[in-house]
Amino acid sequence: MPTEHIVRSYDEELRRLRDMAARMGGLAERQVADATRALVRRDTSLAAEVVQRDVQIDQLEREIEAFCVRLLALRQPMAADLRVIVAAMKLSNDLERIGDYAANAAKRAIVLASLPSIGSLNGFERMAHLVQENLKAAMDAFVNNDAEAAERVWAADEPVDAIYNGIFRELLTFMMEDPRNITAATHMLFIAKNLERIGDHTTNIAERIHYAVRGDSLPEDRPKADESAYAVVRPAGG
Amino acid sequence: MPTEHIVRSYDEELRRLRDMAARMGGLAERQVADATRALVRRDTSLAAEVVQRDVQIDQLEREIEAFCVRLLALRQPMAADLRVIVAAMKLSNDLERIGDYAANAAKRAIVLASLPSIGSLNGFERMAHLVQENLKAAMDAFVNNDAEAAERVWAADEPVDAIYNGIFRELLTFMMEDPRNITAATHMLFIAKNLERIGDHTTNIAERIHYAVRGDSLPEDRPKADESAYAVVRPAGG
Repeated sequence: MPTEHIVRSYDEELRRLRDMAARMGGLAERQVADATRALVRRDTSLAAEVVQRDVQIDQLEREIEAFCVRLLALRQPMAADLRVIVAAMKLSNDLERIGDYAANAAKRAIVLASLPSIGSLNGFERMAHLVQENLKAAMDAFVNNDAEAAERVWAADEPVDAIYNGIFRELLTFMMEDPRNITAATHMLFIAKNLERIGDHTTNIAERIHYAVRGDSLPEDRPKADESAYAVVRPAGG
Repeated sequence: MPTEHIVRSYDEELRRLRDMAARMGGLAERQVADATRALVRRDTSLAAEVVQRDVQIDQLEREIEAFCVRLLALRQPMAADLRVIVAAMKLSNDLERIGDYAANAAKRAIVLASLPSIGSLNGFERMAHLVQENLKAAMDAFVNNDAEAAERVWAADEPVDAIYNGIFRELLTFMMEDPRNITAATHMLFIAKNLERIGDHTTNIAERIHYAVRGDSLPEDRPKADESAYAVVRPAGG
């Protein structure tokens, strides 16, 4: 209904864009939560739901992009409004990737449910909880146009990296102890990596929101704690 | 020099945008090639160069975004021009991720150079060669505004996924044979995954170019062969 949009005020349209992005963010959060729950509870039907639901996120990304392109063409926005639209396009891209990582984790959760369980999944739950909280805070910052809140999210990824490093080392140890753990541990490694990358994309989103509100960029390097995953772990007998 | 840009013709500016994107694409290609060369030759100084050069890609992404925002504000482009600008913004994001994956692979190549080598790296070389070729073809399609060429790239990722699956299975077997292989094989698994994701981003780039030229989207599902990596590999003794 194009007429509807022409009569609608520009402010209303920008509000609608923020709402679409918030809805996409909420769905991405839910995907991360459900993928993790499916992993922990070995719930393959929940995992299958997550995999299927991924198309909804892809669809929202396309809707946001189409809406942004129309706003750009019809409203020819300037300054802050233009930045909000550019940020919405870019962060929808990050949310799409987050959805992709969650769906990938859910696929691996299905495989893992058919294998003997190894180790504790507490680290995964803590990581997922943190990235969800950050993602929610980031999307709230977008809806409220709050640069300081975005900056707090941007700086909050360090604990996520630290948990990832712990999981990485623990899984390598399990693999070395018993080769029968290797397949499961490999899938778990990739899930942990997916969660870590979801954290990175959340940081990107926070940067884009900060830029949208303030018009300037955050410093290039954010606090990070992921270097130890490049360290060498040796088997006990090595 | 803002005056320079005001007198410059709009067509020239769009040409410049394509050139910036092509330069960024060329740099991303080189990063993939050098990261792989560093891995194969166990060349840690080349790997360190790749890691350091990543900031250049990040810098180009910011320049492209700033240039696009200025074009949107000053030129208020419509239709096809608007789509080219949106595509440039989005594909610069994919190129930034590609650079990130290449730098991550280079970091792991440094670790691997300190570990005994396992297996052949032929698969990695073939994968890297394919993704580079596709990336080059995609960026050429952007410079030449060629939707058919973009569509060919979009459909060409299947062999990349197939090689990834082969590497995945081989590395799991190495891990099961000898726990001393586990650390090296894990880093190699992540490098293979990075190359596979570089292939995915190249596919995204091809989609964006197709959209820029034609204004419509490619079908949602492209040919893919990556499902067998979710299969269960069991140790000989399991």
